[in-house]
Amino acid sequence: MKISVKVPATTANLGPGFDCLGMALPIYNTITIEETVLPGTGIEINVINNSTNDDDLLLEHIPMDENSIIYKAVELLYNSIGQTPSELKITVQAQIPIAKGLGSSAAVIVGGLLAANELLGKPADEAALLSIAAEVEGHPDNVTPAIVGGLVLSSQEDDGSIIYRKLNWPEDWTISVCIPDYELSTDISRSVLPEEVPMKDAVFNEKRMGMFIHALNTHDKELAKYALQDRLHQPYRMKLVPGLDKIIENLKHEEDVIGCVLSGAGPAILVISSRANTDRIKSIVKDTWENMNVKVNILTLPIENEGAQIIHE
Amino acid sequence: MKISVKVPATTANLGPGFDCLGMALPIYNTITIEETVLPGTGIEINVINNSTNDDDLLLEHIPMDENSIIYKAVELLYNSIGQTPSELKITVQAQIPIAKGLGSSAAVIVGGLLAANELLGKPADEAALLSIAAEVEGHPDNVTPAIVGGLVLSSQEDDGSIIYRKLNWPEDWTISVCIPDYELSTDISRSVLPEEVPMKDAVFNEKRMGMFIHALNTHDKELAKYALQDRLHQPYRMKLVPGLDKIIENLKHEEDVIGCVLSGAGPAILVISSRANTDRIKSIVKDTWENMNVKVNILTLPIENEGAQIIHE
Repeated sequence: MKISVKVPATTANLGPGFDCLGMALPIYNTITIEETVLPGTGIEINVINNSTNDDDLLLEHIPMDENSIIYKAVELLYNSIGQTPSELKITVQAQIPIAKGLGSSAAVIVGGLLAANELLGKPADEAALLSIAAEVEGHPDNVTPAIVGGLVLSSQEDDGSIIYRKLNWPEDWTISVCIPDYELSTDISRSVLPEEVPMKDAVFNEKRMGMFIHALNTHDKELAKYALQDRLHQPYRMKLVPGLDKIIENLKHEEDVIGCVLSGAGPAILVISSRANTDRIKSIVKDTWENMNVKVNILTLPIENEGAQIIHE
Repeated sequence: MKISVKVPATTANLGPGFDCLGMALPIYNTITIEETVLPGTGIEINVINNSTNDDDLLLEHIPMDENSIIYKAVELLYNSIGQTPSELKITVQAQIPIAKGLGSSAAVIVGGLLAANELLGKPADEAALLSIAAEVEGHPDNVTPAIVGGLVLSSQEDDGSIIYRKLNWPEDWTISVCIPDYELSTDISRSVLPEEVPMKDAVFNEKRMGMFIHALNTHDKELAKYALQDRLHQPYRMKLVPGLDKIIENLKHEEDVIGCVLSGAGPAILVISSRANTDRIKSIVKDTWENMNVKVNILTLPIENEGAQIIHE
């Protein structure tokens, strides 16, 4: 039996929504799991690079053994029904660039998990899959939209369960995903965050989070412009993402730009705008980064509303 | 000429909305300003106690001279058009209990300001009135709903201007305002708040703020239950509000209770519920406080949607 799962990229920490607001994007990793015929062959994990960024050296980044996050996710699922995985061939066809803040790890975790669940006859429901995926990933804000698609507000309770709600994204708000050619590991990006933050910064994000959710609900572009800011992670990560400050500055007076924010832990940047034609935005971002000798790939994408899809072959 | 303004009570810091989410309630202070006939008589401020709490010693609390917050608000408005107030008789008919966290100071500031603005021929627009009121009060979250009514999400920009949006309150969500017979000055209540907070507490409020706004929008009671919590001010003020922890504990298993939160800086408590008949909630709150020898007045109130009203006499 052979099961494939197509899982979208995700962008987390959207604007004021540090650690809770994520969105799926139509770039996909496809994870295939098949039971191998011969017993005793163990686990084999292969990665095929279909990335939109030619420079990605995927094979260097995804460990292809039992230490892999894919393997961990699959193992946790097997364990949850008292089994141990064995004799599996896992193949990742990877389109999502690695270490850019676009949820490539969440995608492989979710893909492995959903494929294994299908292979085992669906012992786990959505809630259980979300919990396992968040456990392996460490937080729910990428894995939740990777599974359910769309724009998702999520939180993990103390018992590991995930509370989430899907939100509507205004149809005429355009998303430009700007991916520089340098990488940034989530571990490094997370290590620069402080344990304590100024109260005024906590209030800054809290009120903007409320305002952004209200702006989404009422398609209030002016309010979204005010709300799409962050003081809980972006300022600390600014120095790890050369060019981010200049890009924000250079886009500041563009009437149609609603926001310019870090995608996940970076270094990809999202530009949200109310203009269908993003040529001007693209050229500003491109010029700013190219002046710093950073190559950039910019994709203007719709939101991905389906989430992970199982493909029976 | 004599102008009266009827201004509603307000509850701020609603659940996760510390320093930004406030709501008007139908308890009113009426502020009357009249120009006195004889020049040289100066400013006279009188307070008439119509409080719902008989124990309130209003006259002890509202300074009746030029140090009064009412006077400051009126003076700032006169100054904004290059004038100085003189020969005014200001009367406050006060129904809003003092030092309970129900916006009595915001109400007199707003009342004085709006009455003086009317007397001067409306030199200030809403934006200017909001700015002056927030300047005198120190923050916008009570004065904004006091002026515009309803449930309001507001923020003050660095230049002093107020950004706000009115939100819909689900019609079947009941508000019980529980007012203990002890007082708590906002100054003391504010002094216990730290300058820095744990990052996880900042994220706790941020995500619940998003969830509460979404819950309001979708009338999602379960989500609101999860969201109506706070870690930015309530834990620090818990010790200043004896009984709050016990009331939260005793209401925890009441199916219809959506949330139990401090009103403003306290000590009043709001209980939000999805039940029209609040007798059971009232008796739980009453019993808890009376066991601690605290007398309590509980009012089940609708939201006040009009805001400050000018009464021409």
